[in-house]
Amino acid sequence: MAAVSKYLFDHNANIVQSDQYTDPATNMFFNRIEFDLDDLEHKLQELKEQFPVIAQKFQINWEFHVASRKKKLAIFVSREDHCLTELLWQWKRGDLYAEISMVISNHESMKTVADSFNIPYHYIPVSPDQKIHSEERQVDVMGNDIDLVIFARYMQIVSDSFIQKYPNRIINIHHSFLPAFAGGKPYSQAYKRGVKIIGATAHYVNADLDGGPIIEQDVERVTHRDSVADLMRIGRHTEKMVLGKAVKLHLEDRILVDGNKTVIFR
Amino acid sequence: MAAVSKYLFDHNANIVQSDQYTDPATNMFFNRIEFDLDDLEHKLQELKEQFPVIAQKFQINWEFHVASRKKKLAIFVSREDHCLTELLWQWKRGDLYAEISMVISNHESMKTVADSFNIPYHYIPVSPDQKIHSEERQVDVMGNDIDLVIFARYMQIVSDSFIQKYPNRIINIHHSFLPAFAGGKPYSQAYKRGVKIIGATAHYVNADLDGGPIIEQDVERVTHRDSVADLMRIGRHTEKMVLGKAVKLHLEDRILVDGNKTVIFR
Amino acid sequence: MAAVSKYLFDHNANIVQSDQYTDPATNMFFNRIEFDLDDLEHKLQELKEQFPVIAQKFQINWEFHVASRKKKLAIFVSREDHCLTELLWQWKRGDLYAEISMVISNHESMKTVADSFNIPYHYIPVSPDQKIHSEERQVDVMGNDIDLVIFARYMQIVSDSFIQKYPNRIINIHHSFLPAFAGGKPYSQAYKRGVKIIGATAHYVNADLDGGPIIEQDVERVTHRDSVADLMRIGRHTEKMVLGKAVKLHLEDRILVDGNKTVIFR
Amino acid sequence: MAAVSKYLFDHNANIVQSDQYTDPATNMFFNRIEFDLDDLEHKLQELKEQFPVIAQKFQINWEFHVASRKKKLAIFVSREDHCLTELLWQWKRGDLYAEISMVISNHESMKTVADSFNIPYHYIPVSPDQKIHSEERQVDVMGNDIDLVIFARYMQIVSDSFIQKYPNRIINIHHSFLPAFAGGKPYSQAYKRGVKIIGATAHYVNADLDGGPIIEQDVERVTHRDSVADLMRIGRHTEKMVLGKAVKLHLEDRILVDGNKTVIFR
Repeated sequence: MAAVSKYLFDHNANIVQSDQYTDPATNMFFNRIEFDLDDLEHKLQELKEQFPVIAQKFQINWEFHVASRKKKLAIFVSREDHCLTELLWQWKRGDLYAEISMVISNHESMKTVADSFNIPYHYIPVSPDQKIHSEERQVDVMGNDIDLVIFARYMQIVSDSFIQKYPNRIINIHHSFLPAFAGGKPYSQAYKRGVKIIGATAHYVNADLDGGPIIEQDVERVTHRDSVADLMRIGRHTEKMVLGKAVKLHLEDRILVDGNKTVIFR
Repeated sequence: MAAVSKYLFDHNANIVQSDQYTDPATNMFFNRIEFDLDDLEHKLQELKEQFPVIAQKFQINWEFHVASRKKKLAIFVSREDHCLTELLWQWKRGDLYAEISMVISNHESMKTVADSFNIPYHYIPVSPDQKIHSEERQVDVMGNDIDLVIFARYMQIVSDSFIQKYPNRIINIHHSFLPAFAGGKPYSQAYKRGVKIIGATAHYVNADLDGGPIIEQDVERVTHRDSVADLMRIGRHTEKMVLGKAVKLHLEDRILVDGNKTVIFR
Repeated sequence: MAAVSKYLFDHNANIVQSDQYTDPATNMFFNRIEFDLDDLEHKLQELKEQFPVIAQKFQINWEFHVASRKKKLAIFVSREDHCLTELLWQWKRGDLYAEISMVISNHESMKTVADSFNIPYHYIPVSPDQKIHSEERQVDVMGNDIDLVIFARYMQIVSDSFIQKYPNRIINIHHSFLPAFAGGKPYSQAYKRGVKIIGATAHYVNADLDGGPIIEQDVERVTHRDSVADLMRIGRHTEKMVLGKAVKLHLEDRILVDGNKTVIFR
Repeated sequence: MAAVSKYLFDHNANIVQSDQYTDPATNMFFNRIEFDLDDLEHKLQELKEQFPVIAQKFQINWEFHVASRKKKLAIFVSREDHCLTELLWQWKRGDLYAEISMVISNHESMKTVADSFNIPYHYIPVSPDQKIHSEERQVDVMGNDIDLVIFARYMQIVSDSFIQKYPNRIINIHHSFLPAFAGGKPYSQAYKRGVKIIGATAHYVNADLDGGPIIEQDVERVTHRDSVADLMRIGRHTEKMVLGKAVKLHLEDRILVDGNKTVIFR
């Protein structure tokens, strides 16, 4: 940490915030440094070129992110509009600093939502026997410059090869308090089990279905009077808020992935 | 409902509160009526004797509870004192309207806690090969007049025959947000999974381990910095509060069991 | 209560839910009864005509509401779109059973929001010296059949005469945890005071500014790092959820006003 | 920050965690550094002696705290035992790393609680006309080595001169969600106002009654059915948890006071 601080200091960077964490299980050290630097545009290249000397010495896995650059997002959605609408509203309101490049859906019905925010919409149907083909089309329309894929209630299971293209760069919202009620129909499961609190979980997607690193969770109280439809209605609010918070954390580069967990520096 | 109301009205009972619920899955109707009745002591017998006429006509499963009668509790505990201490403190403070008849433990260490509240303490060791024998001793010291058994972090799995002696009359606190992390070491499981919220669940005990009707749940936020020991410390607060609330609801006869769920009239 | 139950029973009504509450301070008894009745359209008139006999005998203030009739709403808004957008989205999604008759604003900027949901929009400017005149125009466009007025971040103080036209029929969202930070700029006040939790309050509007009966409140955690702009961003989520819940409770006739408080039967 | 890091590095200190915050209003920079240092006992003196050179250069107000040294606490209490009992329980359980030097009370009734934890108890009556004299006795029994004074539901208003003896070293628990319901009888005020959520606030005590820097707050939902006695019962749980959290934060030197606010590095 002293070496990195000194490196930045010697390059006239002004450290605004530095957060650290050591995972006691692996002894891995995590550090996020936010710094200001005049004339960043010109100096960044230099910073990046010389840093590997230090990085190699201390065996650091590192990334530089320019906070002023807007990340490019692709939002995937199926039939439920609440997460998509909330993300677009937050983005329009200025709460999410990003460029929303496109909405991709296996249904045509969300087009009006995307249109009302002037976001390009790609309708790519997904049929069980043509999944790989659909994924190829999805990857194709996204091209090479999508920084973050968001599954905003996208109800399709994607292939491992798709996931591996975007490591720790796909955020999914699962409509339960994971690991409870993983898999399908979580609200029906919750109703059947008679829980008194329901929740939602935003997580990075990896090969393990509903098992990726958890970013954010929240819950809401329910009672025996709440039907499955009520749970779905109540849950929609939790889902969209949790997803919005997780996306914001990612956009601000506040999330470091530590194996199957997240280290979040707020 | 009209018939029952009329029955009570005709017996000069003054209905203070009446709550109803119909389970849409089973069409079962649940009703809890709280009423005042002068000279209840003498009239209760009559009320009870004549009610079966109506009950039979409408196929009602019914119970009369005299609110002024203190229920008798037996609290089971192993090595963790926080739930026991909280229950005893709430009871002493007047928050739990009950008689705490005894504390039963498979360890000697909780005796000082029970002593400081002047509650009889029964140390009944439980060894893996003598479980049934230990349970017989437990049942024996409880005798016939225990209304509610509380597992206040009692870390032994009890037999079906024990459970069947106290149907919907054993409350357990499980130190996770069920159905997540059922079974042993839930905080270690939660730590390993990297959840952002932990919880506790109070439920009636039935043959299905950690699967009985849920009474109350609550949660608390945690971060990646919280070790398993931190989760345990934070969780202790949630556990004791959740258990206290569940016991209070039971003592006030506010919980009706609906299959594997609870209907709670607050 | 027995008399009312019998009255409904005698008219073949099937009581679905009945909730009661007695205010211990005033000894006032509150009762909300939800009932099904075949051929309600024809029988309602009769029910209403004969009920006063009982009502007079027991001095009951009463109202009949037909649950299937959609209440007509007028939503007032100034420059902040989050509460308006959320209400319209919930309404479109079927969560709010109502007819949104119009949006009224002292600004032109919210017209696009109303348009995208096909809701009539009335731009009625309000200048400090022409307040009464503006209110007359507002009352005029609302006509006689608006059941509920919603101030969805409407930043004008309205006159007593306006308020008296809609007794317990105006819901306002105040962007603080009342009674803390009543009046203007609550987030700046909260920031200055250094609170660790911020909130929002939905209440009926009466002559006492920010002092009407509270319907719903909720809160969110903040830290010293959160600027006033952060508090506003975080608060927007709380505000829109709290307002949505309060409106839903009103639409379902679950709120009874008890002096300066609300009795809410969920 | 670079200078301080270098200073610690040059003295062979291993920085475990460093948190920073700049108050945008005052441009004041706050930094908390946690470090390990072998043979601390001998080196601390040197660290302290040489640090003023840097401190003066950068105009730093600084403090060194040895984490392994237990802070000495004096707990003040009147008639309500819940906060006292919880603190003592958390302390005994090892959750609060401190030495509880004494309990001071204006009543005799809490002596049994202190006794059961083997804590010295000082009964110092406080009469309206002898307040200053009582405070002198309190200061006297505390002597010179009390690090933190805790008002655990101590219902007396103390003088400015008392407060000035322990700047930012008195923590009070106020039984409301400040700034709502400052002053006396907050639960009665909350009941009268009909709020739907009640809370508790732990804060440092300064000359401004109930106006000192807020450390921690929490809330709990209530309904119209909850009487003042119910609010008090529900609130007791919130109070004791909030106070426990605030004391723990102070004991771990995680709280920096920034004017009338707190900067808390978790």
